[in-house]
Amino acid sequence: MQKHLATVGPTSLLTRDKESVWHPFTQLVNGFAHIAVKEARGVYLYTEDGQKIIDAVSSWWVNLHGHSHPEIARAIAEQAQRLEHVIFAGFTHEPAVELAENLLNILPHNQSKVFYSDNGSTAVEVALKMAFQFWYNRGTHKRKVIAIEGAYHGDTFGSMAVGDRGPFSAPFEPFLFEVEFIDFPEREKEDEVLSRLTAVAEQGEVAAFIYEPLVLGAAGMKMYSADWLEKALHIAHTHEVICIADEVFTGFGRTGKYFASQYLKAQPDIVCMSKGLTGGAMALGATSCTERIIEAFRSSDIMKTFFHGHSFTANPIACAAANASYRLLVEDLCQNQIQRVAEQHTTFQRQIADHPGVKAIRSLGVILALEIDTPGETSYVNEVRHKLYPYFIDQGILLRPLGNVIYVVPPYCIEQEELQQIYRAIKELLDTL
Amino acid sequence: MQKHLATVGPTSLLTRDKESVWHPFTQLVNGFAHIAVKEARGVYLYTEDGQKIIDAVSSWWVNLHGHSHPEIARAIAEQAQRLEHVIFAGFTHEPAVELAENLLNILPHNQSKVFYSDNGSTAVEVALKMAFQFWYNRGTHKRKVIAIEGAYHGDTFGSMAVGDRGPFSAPFEPFLFEVEFIDFPEREKEDEVLSRLTAVAEQGEVAAFIYEPLVLGAAGMKMYSADWLEKALHIAHTHEVICIADEVFTGFGRTGKYFASQYLKAQPDIVCMSKGLTGGAMALGATSCTERIIEAFRSSDIMKTFFHGHSFTANPIACAAANASYRLLVEDLCQNQIQRVAEQHTTFQRQIADHPGVKAIRSLGVILALEIDTPGETSYVNEVRHKLYPYFIDQGILLRPLGNVIYVVPPYCIEQEELQQIYRAIKELLDTL
Repeated sequence: MQKHLATVGPTSLLTRDKESVWHPFTQLVNGFAHIAVKEARGVYLYTEDGQKIIDAVSSWWVNLHGHSHPEIARAIAEQAQRLEHVIFAGFTHEPAVELAENLLNILPHNQSKVFYSDNGSTAVEVALKMAFQFWYNRGTHKRKVIAIEGAYHGDTFGSMAVGDRGPFSAPFEPFLFEVEFIDFPEREKEDEVLSRLTAVAEQGEVAAFIYEPLVLGAAGMKMYSADWLEKALHIAHTHEVICIADEVFTGFGRTGKYFASQYLKAQPDIVCMSKGLTGGAMALGATSCTERIIEAFRSSDIMKTFFHGHSFTANPIACAAANASYRLLVEDLCQNQIQRVAEQHTTFQRQIADHPGVKAIRSLGVILALEIDTPGETSYVNEVRHKLYPYFIDQGILLRPLGNVIYVVPPYCIEQEELQQIYRAIKELLDTL
Repeated sequence: MQKHLATVGPTSLLTRDKESVWHPFTQLVNGFAHIAVKEARGVYLYTEDGQKIIDAVSSWWVNLHGHSHPEIARAIAEQAQRLEHVIFAGFTHEPAVELAENLLNILPHNQSKVFYSDNGSTAVEVALKMAFQFWYNRGTHKRKVIAIEGAYHGDTFGSMAVGDRGPFSAPFEPFLFEVEFIDFPEREKEDEVLSRLTAVAEQGEVAAFIYEPLVLGAAGMKMYSADWLEKALHIAHTHEVICIADEVFTGFGRTGKYFASQYLKAQPDIVCMSKGLTGGAMALGATSCTERIIEAFRSSDIMKTFFHGHSFTANPIACAAANASYRLLVEDLCQNQIQRVAEQHTTFQRQIADHPGVKAIRSLGVILALEIDTPGETSYVNEVRHKLYPYFIDQGILLRPLGNVIYVVPPYCIEQEELQQIYRAIKELLDTL
């Protein structure tokens, strides 16, 4: 019966892993070995074989305050003993209400209510569904969505539909709804993209415009100007298009402000959150919206209800973790760490910008990205990735290049010297190219 | 700045909730009040105002061993201190590997590997994507999916697409991919539905058949025969259709076996799990598959990679909770509880079946469902629901009827007398109709 019994023999964790687990975004080829992590504290991952690795990508951009943070761990432990979970339809609890209040404290001021889900993909799905049903409930026929070429909004069918259509999405293309894509607003194309946005909006029937504010993460940490986005939101609002800010990556201080949307005067109608929400401790998603959105759902007609929900919506343990992370985030200590990391990034950016191995370099808040000058286009599947990743691991640093784009997105608690160590490793790499 | 400060004045949690939170599957109308829960232990929810409520629906069918179970709480607390999270691409850890092994121990024997995600919807999305890309990678054009009319598979666009198309999905209809629905296989229609399934399968190009094995949960706990499903899987396999068992609700003992699929000889190619996976403590999803599915992704061609992943894939805390729940589940104590609850259900079913207020009654494992004989069709929005729900809450019992269908799906640790209390409340209700 016990086909996969863990305790039989001295089988290593890696062998057992290979036998039983299929990993995300991971090519299934012979020879590839995962790294087994035993514990983690602060910016360090400690491996089963005694290595110590700086988590310079915050474990897929989620960790804010360092791993296994004692205050978050305590909040989780206490909540698990008191009220681990309760259905969130017909019931409520302190951790969920407190978290909604906390989020509304730091979100753009027009945001009014918080709807919970379980991850970034579902936060985006909720946002799209809110926007679609908003128009449906008002009896207005609007079925178009505008998104930015190359964007990443998640891996579920709705969030894939509004993301990059390329080789990755090819197997699922027949199952994705139609979206109007506008080009990425590179500096020299800003006006052209605005014109295209205007043209699409003027055709009418556009329900929503979804965008990663200021930084397209998975596309290669591509950055665009707040000024452009300001104008784009203005055009969208003029044409009654609901603006959805996907702040799953950019939220919770990554860009130097609580939310990237706060670089603008124009405000989004809907905001998607996840990743940093729990300080990176566990899965949780949230989608906030304005009172205007809510109004379209407030009705004695049951068919105007938003029939969306996941079993673990507003899970108390995840909310407790998020509240603990929030308390750390708003402290001066953390805000100063963010500013210091941002300044270190800027300094390094100036020092290295003219290096012949650097094709482009950019930073915003704690995000630093540089394109390595290599043969082949800048893209996720650029072959150089297979050299860069192990190079950094050998140096005790987890960097996970997006093709030929190296990026550093560390936990905010990273020390000055640890960042310098990362910069040195990058510079040495560039010198050998 | 602090628009929503929790500490200003003696505002009640319910008022604060109304100000800041949008609840799932909840009509936004005046007068509706949520119940504030302070803590929960065993089968009981303890409210802020001192009420004690039996959670007879396991908080949306997730809880197995009672609330705030000390062993699950301990596992969570320990994991949060040691390794709360690490990126699961390129890295692995003991809790995820152990959980995969545990799941493979109790899953149908043909299942080979486990892919993690964050909830039931994403477990289904992963399953559909695995099936679609399986054919894509093999260069076979297969774009049809078969699902059962009235099914519920989740609330994301992909999982909605394969679910019930009705008033709930109407706002999103233009965004859902096409699916071939076969009728629910009621006893008297079994052969007819099999014929229809055969006809669709024979047309070719069918990538997958997705189904809730034996019980359609949200559709009103509608049950159908294992014999029918056995034949359906045989037809599907004969026509090279991938069979996806959505065991999100039925898994982990709900139907009296670890998985409902184990009532059959034919085995599914892919299995979706969530809900009971963590014992109901927190969000986690998992999708398992056979070696044959995996084989289509094993390639040196990077484009055959399964490019799916969520930031918190295989979150160590959630995996630790799931491992603790697994240890409790496989113990004799728990297995005996399941059998005892099943027997009590059967006995009550016999006693009440002929009551004039009962239109239909059915049970399987710990699931008991009865349709109240009321004006109007059996459906989720049957008006009687608005009377039933508060009636039971007044009796200190959380039952959440699906329209005129009352169902009891308790945590397995519910005591004999507590179940009797629920049955009495149901009987008294029927007597007053």
